[in-house]
Amino acid sequence: MLPQADMIRILLVGFGHVGRRLAEILSCRSLYPGLAGLNVSIVGITTGRHGSLIRPQGVDLSAALKDWQSTEHFPVCAGGVSMMDSLQAIRSMDYDVLVELSTLSVAARGEPAITHVREALARGKHVITANKGPVAWAYRSLRDLAAAREVSFLYEGTVMDGAPIFNLVHRCLAGNTIRRIEGILNSTTNVILTAMENGMSLEQGLALAQQEGVAEADARLDLDGWDAAVKLSALANAVMGGELSPEEVERQSLFSLPPEQARTTLASGFRLKMVCRVERTDSGLRASVKATEVPLSDPLALVANRGSMIRITTDLLGQFTLTQEHPNLTSTAYAVISDLFCLLGRQ
Amino acid sequence: MLPQADMIRILLVGFGHVGRRLAEILSCRSLYPGLAGLNVSIVGITTGRHGSLIRPQGVDLSAALKDWQSTEHFPVCAGGVSMMDSLQAIRSMDYDVLVELSTLSVAARGEPAITHVREALARGKHVITANKGPVAWAYRSLRDLAAAREVSFLYEGTVMDGAPIFNLVHRCLAGNTIRRIEGILNSTTNVILTAMENGMSLEQGLALAQQEGVAEADARLDLDGWDAAVKLSALANAVMGGELSPEEVERQSLFSLPPEQARTTLASGFRLKMVCRVERTDSGLRASVKATEVPLSDPLALVANRGSMIRITTDLLGQFTLTQEHPNLTSTAYAVISDLFCLLGRQ
Repeated sequence: MLPQADMIRILLVGFGHVGRRLAEILSCRSLYPGLAGLNVSIVGITTGRHGSLIRPQGVDLSAALKDWQSTEHFPVCAGGVSMMDSLQAIRSMDYDVLVELSTLSVAARGEPAITHVREALARGKHVITANKGPVAWAYRSLRDLAAAREVSFLYEGTVMDGAPIFNLVHRCLAGNTIRRIEGILNSTTNVILTAMENGMSLEQGLALAQQEGVAEADARLDLDGWDAAVKLSALANAVMGGELSPEEVERQSLFSLPPEQARTTLASGFRLKMVCRVERTDSGLRASVKATEVPLSDPLALVANRGSMIRITTDLLGQFTLTQEHPNLTSTAYAVISDLFCLLGRQ
Repeated sequence: MLPQADMIRILLVGFGHVGRRLAEILSCRSLYPGLAGLNVSIVGITTGRHGSLIRPQGVDLSAALKDWQSTEHFPVCAGGVSMMDSLQAIRSMDYDVLVELSTLSVAARGEPAITHVREALARGKHVITANKGPVAWAYRSLRDLAAAREVSFLYEGTVMDGAPIFNLVHRCLAGNTIRRIEGILNSTTNVILTAMENGMSLEQGLALAQQEGVAEADARLDLDGWDAAVKLSALANAVMGGELSPEEVERQSLFSLPPEQARTTLASGFRLKMVCRVERTDSGLRASVKATEVPLSDPLALVANRGSMIRITTDLLGQFTLTQEHPNLTSTAYAVISDLFCLLGRQ
């Protein structure tokens, strides 16, 4: 935990949609009364291919966002620009918290984000990440490293955007044993299946998802179930005590479905949904991402467009559901803010 | 917070359905792996009209439940029986936590539960209550008294049974300003409206609700919207910083509805639901319980039977929903257990 009166110095790795929205929120904090006491300073922003902005005295976020808007690059002329890359900054700079918002790489099994997180923790820095890779492929070792260094490893933004799924389980369910988690966790396939119910082809549905900005840069990661599998691993590891890699999740690809199936399912009074599920069995945790016929009376059937939903089944509390109907960039960026408040011990 | 190694000594006031289920869970703790470390002892059980069982060395819960089953009264012959009433026990006994599970009285504006809670807090005892009265009519003074005595005043069971609505807001939403809370919070009216959609009369629907055990002892409290109004007050006061009494909530009685309205609404593609709502306006918090036509695409429309749902709208996280589809006595009793874990600092 950090002393509340002190300024938190953040090193931000990644300046995509979420990073920029976070910067926007922090630069107009007065719009959000609840953020009044959040005393943070971004001492550096590093990116993979768009340069870095290193300012130990604090980045002027409004100016940085304005520059970025015109060039999508940190300007070489500005005094604080640097050729320092993410790893160099993580290893050498003076900061309190690494906020890791780089893009997930499934092919590289979560790297380089895992190395970023590990190097920061090893230096005794707190880490907040919205990159699913570290929680899916390296949860246990990173958690143990954080514990050994007495710092926090936080990842609320990795599943269901800003909806407080990890905090909910870690802070509100003491005494329960979680038996099963199921839900709809991938927006792209959800948008496509709805489009296919309306008679569109998979390709037309995908174009729609891309137009709405919900598809991953490589949409095959969505369609082949990888994005959902990585999220299921994160849940299995961080809230069910498992050690389950995304490769161990049974995946069904949207490409494997007959083109008419969404329509015929709807005509028979059900909806076809890509249902993610992880459950406790006698032989350990078992997880799958599968096209499933869901009755219309099931709240899963109502999850539309980019909405997401998680249903948790426990021994004491029974079954309850968390739904986010209309996530957006602000709610996703809030996940990082929520983790910052955790560090301050204010939630 | 209580020292973790010590036994928590509980004084239990009220031994209705929830109190007995709590006793059952505590007496067979080994069935629930997550409860292994929960070290509690009930030193007394007091009731309004069924006698009291005072055992400073710890009540034998299995024996007490068995005796109760046959007589619905604590046996006069048993060594520990006492004529001590709830208030006497609260004022004089040696305990760590008062668990207040007495029945809500709307007519008495939350008494005698409010006095029970106040007296225990004044003695420096922690209080857990599932009675909505204290949170609806006396929240601010009880919260301040608890703070002054450096003890906890916890009430997770007062709204949505054991679903962690208060913990969620207090522990997982830091930085957000809550703009609106809406939901379905009264099971009896929900069961009746569904029955009326199927052509039953209000009276037949009520009989069904009573048969399912969801109706309050005095069902008018459900039908006239008082139960929902008291819950809305609790939410307004404890999570939106208000000071709103149940009398200030606009209520619509189910008796005021034309008998056919639920059917005609359904025929037009909507469902009629008693929607509870509290929202921030320029002139403060405004709350209502009203029959509302809900589109079938809204998750509110799917809340069936005794299910309940809360949708929270905030400035940063946007809109998200917590649904409990099938609450039961175990999940309601879990609310008390959840609050016990809070006292132990384990969540």
